[in-house]
Amino acid sequence: MSSKILKSRIQLKVRFSECDPLQIVWHGNYLKYFEEGREDFCIQHGISYLDMKKHAYATPIVKSNCEHKSPLEYGDTFEVETSFQPVDAAKLVFTYKIFKKAKLVCVGETTQVFLNESRELVLINPPFFLDWKKKMGLI
Amino acid sequence: MSSKILKSRIQLKVRFSECDPLQIVWHGNYLKYFEEGREDFCIQHGISYLDMKKHAYATPIVKSNCEHKSPLEYGDTFEVETSFQPVDAAKLVFTYKIFKKAKLVCVGETTQVFLNESRELVLINPPFFLDWKKKMGLI
Amino acid sequence: MSSKILKSRIQLKVRFSECDPLQIVWHGNYLKYFEEGREDFCIQHGISYLDMKKHAYATPIVKSNCEHKSPLEYGDTFEVETSFQPVDAAKLVFTYKIFKKAKLVCVGETTQVFLNESRELVLINPPFFLDWKKKMGLI
Amino acid sequence: MSSKILKSRIQLKVRFSECDPLQIVWHGNYLKYFEEGREDFCIQHGISYLDMKKHAYATPIVKSNCEHKSPLEYGDTFEVETSFQPVDAAKLVFTYKIFKKAKLVCVGETTQVFLNESRELVLINPPFFLDWKKKMGLI
Repeated sequence: MSSKILKSRIQLKVRFSECDPLQIVWHGNYLKYFEEGREDFCIQHGISYLDMKKHAYATPIVKSNCEHKSPLEYGDTFEVETSFQPVDAAKLVFTYKIFKKAKLVCVGETTQVFLNESRELVLINPPFFLDWKKKMGLI
Repeated sequence: MSSKILKSRIQLKVRFSECDPLQIVWHGNYLKYFEEGREDFCIQHGISYLDMKKHAYATPIVKSNCEHKSPLEYGDTFEVETSFQPVDAAKLVFTYKIFKKAKLVCVGETTQVFLNESRELVLINPPFFLDWKKKMGLI
Repeated sequence: MSSKILKSRIQLKVRFSECDPLQIVWHGNYLKYFEEGREDFCIQHGISYLDMKKHAYATPIVKSNCEHKSPLEYGDTFEVETSFQPVDAAKLVFTYKIFKKAKLVCVGETTQVFLNESRELVLINPPFFLDWKKKMGLI
Repeated sequence: MSSKILKSRIQLKVRFSECDPLQIVWHGNYLKYFEEGREDFCIQHGISYLDMKKHAYATPIVKSNCEHKSPLEYGDTFEVETSFQPVDAAKLVFTYKIFKKAKLVCVGETTQVFLNESRELVLINPPFFLDWKKKMGLI
């Protein structure tokens, strides 16, 4: 396995409706930010939800975690840095760092699996995904 | 057209994540409450989303409005009263009243249309829907 | 009253989590898009949520409506055009048009009132708001 | 530390707006279900958000994780079992199990910290919280 880490970075803004009565972003909304980071990564690198769909795979999230160092508040602009973590198993693992200016405010990770058209778990890497990894210099 | 009005009533509770920095339910979340009221109505009266799906119709919302008399806050329990408004056109019109104890805090209305399997607008009432209206004594 | 209409325009992208099992944006999420349009307008024109807060006013939404001409889907990019509708009453009325490329897909309107620090309804226009309207050439 | 584990159980139903284009509950929405479980626990056991507020503490979530064994779909009814995990540090740790009938479909954990009125992190257990733990037989 290569040690190359593919990354992307996207800038977002806190929405009013994402903030809770504590005047901070409700913790569950960070998963939306991770998702925006991930999708931006996937579109940039040619492995988006719609690419998956074309190959008849769905990639639901089976695991997620999120750790908050400091809250985001209404009006904040921030950046999500998404990194693809190469693993041998038939999984998609992404890690996320959210920065408010230079300050790291949140980190997280998600794991996705591949389901085929019959919604069965696929235990070996789909050919199109191995091709993608090769093309990206990840294997 | 009959003047009979079918209704249902469901009790719900405000979730923390539904409240905004003003310490009240974020206005867009009332559409979730309307939806819960409507689905409860539809399940009770045998015309649910899944019934629609069985007949190969989708019924997206094309119009909604919402008027707030008084805010709901975190911790509040409330009731959604959903009424089916019979119309001749191939549409589903529901009105909603949200009560906090005896106090009316919000009213609203939604309109849905019928789409067939090809996602085309259906301009005449689907037979299963006319059957349902007859069965309910609405026509 | 002036006939001048202040507008703003913002470009947004549909999030996966905003789409429902019908593969389209869930209708209630358009109120988030309206809110993003409105806040963009308010920041651009110096009358934002945080400006209101500085003057000790809250401006909750008391009325909203939304009409869908055509659905937005996952992957769509769209624009929200927000227009300030001058009214004499102590209210903030905005209208919204959502465009997917040149196509108008959704229109809507929201009404906000002013609450003072004690959360009481303010029936006359707050001085800072009249000043703003004058500055903007609206009165 | 006692080995007693306090639990609660609440029954919920999947909302249409919580499901995504894969026809399953969008992963981030499980944090709402955990929150409903946690709040139900806290109200039942006298340590709710509003109790915290009375003592001038806020308890934001600083860590969460979620693991999905099997998806929840639209129309599903399910139960959230919330367990309080006693720890010595000034933290609130809850674990969650979501069951669809007898089947475990999701597990998770959240960690909350105490902030005082000035929004500073409180490193020692607040007296009211120690009193509560004693009363509950947890210490």
